[in-house]
Amino acid sequence: MEEEVKGVKLYGMWASIFAKRVEMALKMKGIPYEYVEEDLVNKSEKLLNYNPVYKKVPVLVHHEKPISESLIILEYIDENWKHPPLLLPEVPFQRAKVRFWANFVNQQVFPSVRAIHVLEGEEQEKVTQELYEKLKVLEEGVEKDFFSSVAGTVFCGGATAGLIDILLWSIFGLHEAAEEACGVKIIDPQSNRLLFKLVTSLNDLPVAKEVLPPHEGFVAILKHIRAKALQSPKA
Amino acid sequence: MEEEVKGVKLYGMWASIFAKRVEMALKMKGIPYEYVEEDLVNKSEKLLNYNPVYKKVPVLVHHEKPISESLIILEYIDENWKHPPLLLPEVPFQRAKVRFWANFVNQQVFPSVRAIHVLEGEEQEKVTQELYEKLKVLEEGVEKDFFSSVAGTVFCGGATAGLIDILLWSIFGLHEAAEEACGVKIIDPQSNRLLFKLVTSLNDLPVAKEVLPPHEGFVAILKHIRAKALQSPKA
Repeated sequence: MEEEVKGVKLYGMWASIFAKRVEMALKMKGIPYEYVEEDLVNKSEKLLNYNPVYKKVPVLVHHEKPISESLIILEYIDENWKHPPLLLPEVPFQRAKVRFWANFVNQQVFPSVRAIHVLEGEEQEKVTQELYEKLKVLEEGVEKDFFSSVAGTVFCGGATAGLIDILLWSIFGLHEAAEEACGVKIIDPQSNRLLFKLVTSLNDLPVAKEVLPPHEGFVAILKHIRAKALQSPKA
Repeated sequence: MEEEVKGVKLYGMWASIFAKRVEMALKMKGIPYEYVEEDLVNKSEKLLNYNPVYKKVPVLVHHEKPISESLIILEYIDENWKHPPLLLPEVPFQRAKVRFWANFVNQQVFPSVRAIHVLEGEEQEKVTQELYEKLKVLEEGVEKDFFSSVAGTVFCGGATAGLIDILLWSIFGLHEAAEEACGVKIIDPQSNRLLFKLVTSLNDLPVAKEVLPPHEGFVAILKHIRAKALQSPKA
């Protein structure tokens, strides 16, 4: 066990939703790891060496081999430790569907949420409406692709949370803190029933409680990011 | 064989570099398929049904199941038809490296090339320099990750072209046509030796000759896109 912990190191930052995805996956699969907190204002030499291209967390280091980018790390975890719970299904077509919606969450949904945090007034309203439209597309899509054949399932991954569930949880798990910081509802329990149920079910898991940042601290950092963005001159 | 062809359909467009990636992968692995050319100005009902989210080519339809997004399709092809040549290596860490550089090509290199095509003057010069910087990062990275251990290898995929090679070839395979259309050198035989060798080696393969669009037609479509972009009012 000690040997195993020595072999797996995660470079993260307590409020990074991308690092949270990796922590969640490692804990869900029961993979012991050593966690290294990075100071993003003064990044460690190790981080810069491990991820020279983007210089960002998370980086997973396994037996001195570094892997970066959260989605790539999650696929690595599932391919390297093949025991359940599986983050991706085994059937190639289903894997393709998971990757499609994972990209949609990363490339469509997340940028809208991030924009809401740094905008105000009409601009903020516009991206909020765009987010709602995208969530509608997402919910209809995953309903069709993952839920239609199995009644009563909570997760896109089936009986246990999978890749898409972890991504959505990393963005919406602390939606109350996000809403407190930006003054906008980013997920609605009524119109986003599927997403809301998925996220709250994940929040209820003991591993999630270990991984999620504290509400107050997360609100504070989001408010800090927001204030800084609104003060800076527009491009 | 007839049955197999019936089972695999590719919706593409003759000048789409994303569709070319899929054609190349199918031909390299010797998978028979039926090709359906789409008119992007007047898309077919089938395409809209198969890819309702993005409404774009390529879409690979296998036994009536549609898969979209070129990178996801390439991974599907490799996972579903497990025979060589492999587009991704089998070792999880090496797979992660391939995905990392594939994302770099798609998210960093390609947007710069696209921008060069629709800009002029100082703006074009600026993104051209950015492209050269990115190609330097790419070449140093793939050199370290894929070439350092094996002398004389031409492809990132090793003895045969893999995922990264196909992506780079889709962007730079017709670099002469691109340069004719935008007036800028997008790849330099001297400073991009590794990339240049990889792309020309791929161009020499008989399958590439079957797949690449004709030079004149490709120049014409790139010039058309450029003229339209330069005429339209700046945002």
